[in-house]
Amino acid sequence: MSDRYTIAVDVMGGDFGPRVTVPACVDALKRHPRLIMKLVGDRDTISPLLHKLDAELSSRLQIIHADLTVTMSDKPSQVLRNGQETSMYKALQLVSEQQASACVSAGNTGALMVLGRFILRTLPGIDRPAIISSVPTETGHCYVLDLGANVDCSAEHLLQFAIMGSVMTTAVDGVGSPTVGLLNIGQEEIKGNEQVKLASRLIAERGGLNYIGFVEGNDLYAGTADVVVCDGFVGNIALKSSEGLARMISQKLQSSFRQGLYRRLLALLAKPILGELKALMDPSRRNGASLLGLQGIVIKSHGAANRTCFGFALDQAVAEIEQDVPRRISSEIEHKLT
Amino acid sequence: MSDRYTIAVDVMGGDFGPRVTVPACVDALKRHPRLIMKLVGDRDTISPLLHKLDAELSSRLQIIHADLTVTMSDKPSQVLRNGQETSMYKALQLVSEQQASACVSAGNTGALMVLGRFILRTLPGIDRPAIISSVPTETGHCYVLDLGANVDCSAEHLLQFAIMGSVMTTAVDGVGSPTVGLLNIGQEEIKGNEQVKLASRLIAERGGLNYIGFVEGNDLYAGTADVVVCDGFVGNIALKSSEGLARMISQKLQSSFRQGLYRRLLALLAKPILGELKALMDPSRRNGASLLGLQGIVIKSHGAANRTCFGFALDQAVAEIEQDVPRRISSEIEHKLT
Repeated sequence: MSDRYTIAVDVMGGDFGPRVTVPACVDALKRHPRLIMKLVGDRDTISPLLHKLDAELSSRLQIIHADLTVTMSDKPSQVLRNGQETSMYKALQLVSEQQASACVSAGNTGALMVLGRFILRTLPGIDRPAIISSVPTETGHCYVLDLGANVDCSAEHLLQFAIMGSVMTTAVDGVGSPTVGLLNIGQEEIKGNEQVKLASRLIAERGGLNYIGFVEGNDLYAGTADVVVCDGFVGNIALKSSEGLARMISQKLQSSFRQGLYRRLLALLAKPILGELKALMDPSRRNGASLLGLQGIVIKSHGAANRTCFGFALDQAVAEIEQDVPRRISSEIEHKLT
Repeated sequence: MSDRYTIAVDVMGGDFGPRVTVPACVDALKRHPRLIMKLVGDRDTISPLLHKLDAELSSRLQIIHADLTVTMSDKPSQVLRNGQETSMYKALQLVSEQQASACVSAGNTGALMVLGRFILRTLPGIDRPAIISSVPTETGHCYVLDLGANVDCSAEHLLQFAIMGSVMTTAVDGVGSPTVGLLNIGQEEIKGNEQVKLASRLIAERGGLNYIGFVEGNDLYAGTADVVVCDGFVGNIALKSSEGLARMISQKLQSSFRQGLYRRLLALLAKPILGELKALMDPSRRNGASLLGLQGIVIKSHGAANRTCFGFALDQAVAEIEQDVPRRISSEIEHKLT
């Protein structure tokens, strides 16, 4: 029993709530035989979704009742003051009380960040947590951080992000010495604002990383670096812009293939290719952004994730637990920055 | 003769130089019967490209010799000190001496900005020029500025950009009261950094614009606003990220349609659709970014533009001349900010 591990899931979050998250949790129990799940949310909503479960799965699943749910319109500061009875709060609390090794939620991102930081605290040597996620590239994928946890970052913060991103890539993807780039508007040393110039020097001197210098927006998808570091304002806008473009292309393609019988027929024939393309452009297929730098694992799922995609977020939690990402970050930070 | 207008073209710039830019200029003379062109560059390279030109076209075309060319690796500061004999410098000088109404170049962007600002000066009331370009949206297109002229912008600068972008949209697209959005990482008023919060208040209070508040990265391509305002660091990265994603999708699609005979056949049948898609994703199809806020019209073409696409940049110059964009900006700024 000692090699089991537990994930606390805020099953109430996301656009679809328990009817998507609960079946996804059951699927994950089947995929991961050592996994135990604590489903946090409204017991009366969750229970009916678990009927017909076999005894083995039932034995690895527990409902933790929570009266309230954080909504998308709730302000993080209000949730921090009055949110103790919400499923999100309780799921994070299970991690801080070491009754779970990770928390997964598809709920309000701002609230998850504020609660995560308040309940779990940052690791020693880390000033601020950062949101990290991967984007597809021509050759595989690339981790990008921060994606919106911090609107203003000092050079020191960017250095901490660089170390965290590098640890994550080594831990989860097994990349020995991941290349790290700093997002800027040009590759020359004279380009950019004071913050990125200073951060570049800091990372080169003190990061002890495989640092390749500045990268540009287009490098995100070109596979130029394994990890791309930026402040949360820029990272959030870069990622959302790309997602917006992908959605537009997807829609134009669909409407293009609907114009007339001939094109509809073509669409039918080209269905596998269009399916691949759609998968490539759908951000929820790479679901599971991590809040790195906390004393515990917190995974944010896309709100719009379906059962399969919510499962990706759960798998991300499993991978980070198995690789003990917070401890590895902590040890690297201690080793390099203190 | 009084209703004629002149464009000075730095024909040496861009990846392909005169063999692309010169034929594009000849095409533009045919499209615009009132247009006069001054081709600035190496006479011996340009002349042979103009043989067999009919007398009427020849009469509207003049070569201005320049010994030197600004290369992509030249530092803007060096060009500013020693670049007097370059084609870019001379083309801009023609505008400042009122021998041309606009300058078009596919050369080094940094050099064009620095020289443009030095030679032409900003309009009264404008602290800094901004780079504006359009991106395709689900419903048409959207102007975005700044795209990289300014890495740090104050709220006042963003207000000036908002007014300039609005004037541009009205002048060139004939939109009566264009919607203006400010790029941020959330739509709520509490989101974002201090700079955008302050800018939002300023634009709302003093812009006299159809201001719709904060927009997010995905709104760029959704048609949410006619004009999106941001600082040059964020704008450059947002645009280049999207371009990088588009290129990746394009490549994956191509390789997908090459896997086996059946897919190759499909590609052949779907060629018109794939062509439309490629055009949508190719940034040079929307070629012609403007440096707004200068005492004269300066258009930057993509370096990789082919003959047709360089023509779009020339057409953009014609449109801005016909609508007298700098004078309209000047009058709006005077009206609203002084």
